[in-house]
Amino acid sequence: MDMRVVDLIKKKRDGGELSQDEISHLIRGYSGGEITDYQMAAFLMAVYFRGMTPAEIVALTREMIASGQVVDLSDIPGKKVDKHSTGGVGDKTSLVLAPLAAAAGVVVPMISGRGLAHTGGTLDKLESIPGFRVDLSLDEYRRVLASVGLVLAGPTGQLAPADKKLYALRDVTATVDSIPLIVSSILSKKVAEGIDGLVVDVKVGSGAFMSTFDQARALAEALVATGRRLGLEMRALITDMDQPLGRAVGNAVEVIESIETLKGRGPADLTELSVELAAHMVVLANRAGTVDEARQRVRECLVTGAGLEKFRAVIEAQGGDPAVIDDYRRLPRARHRRELPARRDGVITHIDAAAVGRACMQLGAGRERLDSPIDRAVGIVLHKKVGDPVEVGESLCTIAYNDVGRLPEVERVLSEAFVIASEMPPLRPLVKAIM
Amino acid sequence: MDMRVVDLIKKKRDGGELSQDEISHLIRGYSGGEITDYQMAAFLMAVYFRGMTPAEIVALTREMIASGQVVDLSDIPGKKVDKHSTGGVGDKTSLVLAPLAAAAGVVVPMISGRGLAHTGGTLDKLESIPGFRVDLSLDEYRRVLASVGLVLAGPTGQLAPADKKLYALRDVTATVDSIPLIVSSILSKKVAEGIDGLVVDVKVGSGAFMSTFDQARALAEALVATGRRLGLEMRALITDMDQPLGRAVGNAVEVIESIETLKGRGPADLTELSVELAAHMVVLANRAGTVDEARQRVRECLVTGAGLEKFRAVIEAQGGDPAVIDDYRRLPRARHRRELPARRDGVITHIDAAAVGRACMQLGAGRERLDSPIDRAVGIVLHKKVGDPVEVGESLCTIAYNDVGRLPEVERVLSEAFVIASEMPPLRPLVKAIM
Repeated sequence: MDMRVVDLIKKKRDGGELSQDEISHLIRGYSGGEITDYQMAAFLMAVYFRGMTPAEIVALTREMIASGQVVDLSDIPGKKVDKHSTGGVGDKTSLVLAPLAAAAGVVVPMISGRGLAHTGGTLDKLESIPGFRVDLSLDEYRRVLASVGLVLAGPTGQLAPADKKLYALRDVTATVDSIPLIVSSILSKKVAEGIDGLVVDVKVGSGAFMSTFDQARALAEALVATGRRLGLEMRALITDMDQPLGRAVGNAVEVIESIETLKGRGPADLTELSVELAAHMVVLANRAGTVDEARQRVRECLVTGAGLEKFRAVIEAQGGDPAVIDDYRRLPRARHRRELPARRDGVITHIDAAAVGRACMQLGAGRERLDSPIDRAVGIVLHKKVGDPVEVGESLCTIAYNDVGRLPEVERVLSEAFVIASEMPPLRPLVKAIM
Repeated sequence: MDMRVVDLIKKKRDGGELSQDEISHLIRGYSGGEITDYQMAAFLMAVYFRGMTPAEIVALTREMIASGQVVDLSDIPGKKVDKHSTGGVGDKTSLVLAPLAAAAGVVVPMISGRGLAHTGGTLDKLESIPGFRVDLSLDEYRRVLASVGLVLAGPTGQLAPADKKLYALRDVTATVDSIPLIVSSILSKKVAEGIDGLVVDVKVGSGAFMSTFDQARALAEALVATGRRLGLEMRALITDMDQPLGRAVGNAVEVIESIETLKGRGPADLTELSVELAAHMVVLANRAGTVDEARQRVRECLVTGAGLEKFRAVIEAQGGDPAVIDDYRRLPRARHRRELPARRDGVITHIDAAAVGRACMQLGAGRERLDSPIDRAVGIVLHKKVGDPVEVGESLCTIAYNDVGRLPEVERVLSEAFVIASEMPPLRPLVKAIM
């Protein structure tokens, strides 16, 4: 072989820029099994330290796209726009904004993931709905999208399989949190879905992957720049994930909160963020001329119940029981409930989102490894959020649990997650930047 | 498993210091096959970027030693001292200094390596001597050492096998040139030999692994500090490798030059460096009180022929034909010879050692990969060295070759290796620093 893999590793290690051919050689060779896991692992760690130029990120993403199929949705009229979130605690915006954007005329082909560590996953939440199928064939995916204008599916092995193989390696070699690798992983899967535009929600804060604003901005900028060079209409929002979003954290409890939000009775932060993200999707789909106009359209879909009806339609189209919308008792329900009392008077100044996510995982609602089983019935519902006054003994949250043995540790973690002080905390804007 | 490998990789990636237990877990797990090549490759690349603390290097070296046997030489009286060179072009000092040091009363258990890329290897040179066996059992190794006071052997799989496995991985993952990994690799094998002291010759210059003095000093300092913490008497010399050492580059031609040097007729630079290194071995073995006194002793062994007789004895003890010492025609000899004429009058200001090494490899005397076969008869003998005046048409070197097809490329590389100018170059000291 003329191109020696060890020389490519060395070039990146020494800060050089790889050509398109060199990146192609690496990704094709790795997908085809000619390049070993150990050489790829060394390369990934070199990328972690040296980063990649914009041209390298584009080339890497293109190769990952080319490793599989790209869905052709051109026979379905209208602009296809999706949303991607970098993951947070209590982040059920997909369940709210996808139906709202679809009701506002956007075609929404949404492929989501499962939860990992302290963050939840859209697929796990959707599967709380009895009968709901996320593992659609490409034919079913296309059929649901054409008839409902919205589909909520899981990844298939046919889209960007190189990303799947690379991600599994990154997961065990401490090379997940590298911006070039995150960007190419997200965008390769999204481009393969067949979309025209993408709104990215980059979370920042204690419960997010990126803990500082600078990191979040760097990721958002790389996503927007790379997506545009791949021909996508792009918009990125940097949003707060310092406390959980909304009040519910878990699976079935988040589905209930999403339906409540689509009924116009949701928490303010979840409603605001869902409307904002959906509005940007509407703009990218050319369904409104300005963001203000788009917000107005999305709010109408919320008030009129058009979004709720889209959600009902997609549940039905994907084999789920649409009656859950009117009867939450059809969703999995934990056997026990426990209130967590406040230990002092004051004002809530912080709720550590990562800790709430971990407590939820300990209850059984999340997974430590990609193949762990999860309990969709358990969860946490917050009664107090940052800025709320609280009296000693008042309930901070309800813990819905099945396994009594896990309760003491969960209560301990949650108690520490709530910070109560005498002074009102400064207001934190929910949307910190739009790019 | 409580200690997750991915967490250890992450700790090093983020600049943390691994504990002795953590390093032990990694090396034992890797040796035992429970830790995969890809996790180790990611770890090695993280070490490349983050380095290791002195305590980490000691722990790593200890674990590599513990992966195999440590030869117990306590029943052989006297201090055992070895020399290690980081590798150069034309560096045959081992063949000269080991017999000289042994003649001066040092017990010299020397385990050497084979050549790789443009640098030669002591074992390849020794095997030019008909019958000479370097693959000794530990029993033979000990027996030759006890009877001759000197043994010149190849590595056995029983000494530091973890280093062998790690080195093979480093070789294909661009993680060879990392000081902590170099230090632990060198010292684990040397400690396992059963020595009390070690003189290290760190080469610097165009033909060396380390091309700048600062890099060479950093390596020398890490070797001395780590070796001392492992209980060895240590001395490091930083020496010039900007032009080849001596005049002969190859295998049989280097054996001839070594014998000539032991007969007192060798080139000045090779003689000087061999005496200097041997003198430091004599000091570490407590066979002299000062370096001056030691130099005096070593020079005596040269002048009296005591060193030459030691070389004869070790050849005989290891199955070789000692008559080569008096009859070089018993060594492999190339079929053809070609002189390389100077293209202008002037003074030699530089001879690119790496280029001469590559030319020699192209002739067939060196190997590109660890398993390539080599031709021990071919080589290059320089007639001009840096500082020598030269007239146009005069021979710069003789090329001893077997394969006519390779000659044009070799001549081209060699022509470019010699730099001829009008001005005398500044003098470069051979020994640049002693630690």
